[in-house]
Amino acid sequence: MPRYALRVEYDGTPFSGWQRQRDRPSVQATVEAALRRLQPDCPGIAAAGRTDAGVHALGQVAQADMARDWDPFRLSEALNHHLRPDPVAITACARVDDGWHARFSAVERRYTYRLLVRRAPPVLARGQVWHIRFPLDAGAMADAARHLVGRHDFTTFRSTMCQANSPLRTLDELRIERTDAEIRVHARARSFLHNQVRSIVGTLERVGAGAWSPADVAAALQARDRTACGPVAPAQGLCLTGVRYPDCPFSTA
Amino acid sequence: MPRYALRVEYDGTPFSGWQRQRDRPSVQATVEAALRRLQPDCPGIAAAGRTDAGVHALGQVAQADMARDWDPFRLSEALNHHLRPDPVAITACARVDDGWHARFSAVERRYTYRLLVRRAPPVLARGQVWHIRFPLDAGAMADAARHLVGRHDFTTFRSTMCQANSPLRTLDELRIERTDAEIRVHARARSFLHNQVRSIVGTLERVGAGAWSPADVAAALQARDRTACGPVAPAQGLCLTGVRYPDCPFSTA
Repeated sequence: MPRYALRVEYDGTPFSGWQRQRDRPSVQATVEAALRRLQPDCPGIAAAGRTDAGVHALGQVAQADMARDWDPFRLSEALNHHLRPDPVAITACARVDDGWHARFSAVERRYTYRLLVRRAPPVLARGQVWHIRFPLDAGAMADAARHLVGRHDFTTFRSTMCQANSPLRTLDELRIERTDAEIRVHARARSFLHNQVRSIVGTLERVGAGAWSPADVAAALQARDRTACGPVAPAQGLCLTGVRYPDCPFSTA
Repeated sequence: MPRYALRVEYDGTPFSGWQRQRDRPSVQATVEAALRRLQPDCPGIAAAGRTDAGVHALGQVAQADMARDWDPFRLSEALNHHLRPDPVAITACARVDDGWHARFSAVERRYTYRLLVRRAPPVLARGQVWHIRFPLDAGAMADAARHLVGRHDFTTFRSTMCQANSPLRTLDELRIERTDAEIRVHARARSFLHNQVRSIVGTLERVGAGAWSPADVAAALQARDRTACGPVAPAQGLCLTGVRYPDCPFSTA
């Protein structure tokens, strides 16, 4: 069966997350339903990152096995037709080798977390930011972030529901960007633990607010104890911006 | 009566534009209704730019005359409370002199127009971009834009409904920014004619598509004839990003 890589953008608001669930709308089931308009017996699909309920994606990557050959452009056009009006779109599509896997071939995931720091509620960014009503010290957040970059046991910063075998991960980048009323946290790693980015951002927010020092974050990491973590940041601020593969399956599109 | 300057962000989608209209929701009437929850006889308000139906604002500026002194922070908090759940927020508020006028004291308006250039429909930027399904040559658009910068008779690029006395305007900046699948057109001038930015962007889009040459845009400007204009770009891609005054009434907030 020819395999296709799909780059998927979605607004996570109406979904219970990427993963298919009984009786609740998911991004996976939405894309699978569109595929089954083209091929009723199309098998289930897999994705690079199983985003949680309410988390968005600009560059999620999934794979689909089709019974027949499709021109990738026509496949993406047909899927986008059937995806309407759901807030999910296929922004790129490519034929890949049978050995390629959206999840296991991925060598890097990138997430961006957006915090809107002002008194007034979000308007144009509504549903895509965490609204913080008091000032945050982005410099202190950046100082704290430096303690988390590198290879560490991230037990403190993973959900107790995390199913990964090891809490060891290498965080290649954790960058704080400040623009006007917004603070963006950019995180990049080969892979992430469950709730890792939101746990880190929720903790960095405490540093920005002055409740924690950057050294407190280093101590929380060292503790390797979930109860040492700050509050988990809400889902709506998080976006899976991209996934990298050794050979990018997509031409620039 | 003490006068206050209000910086206003809004999602233009549900509104018939800034200006109050009988039986149709407007941003002006929405803000006035919030003001009248604080002061039932509050007079009508004026704004720097009377945006059309569907046009957004990050940095609209309006003025309100109140019967009593308000702490500006408390006034904005009270207004934001009463504006919920409408997609309108007061992002800054300041006491200004009686001689200050949101419209007449303004010395510069800035607009940004967003075009999403790809096959897939917009998802995370839905309602805030003009969706263009074929490639655009941003370089050609920038070449064409250079013909429009400066002081010109913009008769070609204003609505036949435009009520300005003169079609002469000085366009200080018309900059094309390309980022991934998006092209943004940044326009800056002391003031704009009715539909000027959307008329210019609709014409530049024709250049990007290859249907017009940059020289055609120069000729259209020279024609001083509304029928020489390209199609008017849709409202939803346009955003009033900011207004400048000789003395900025707002501290950074």
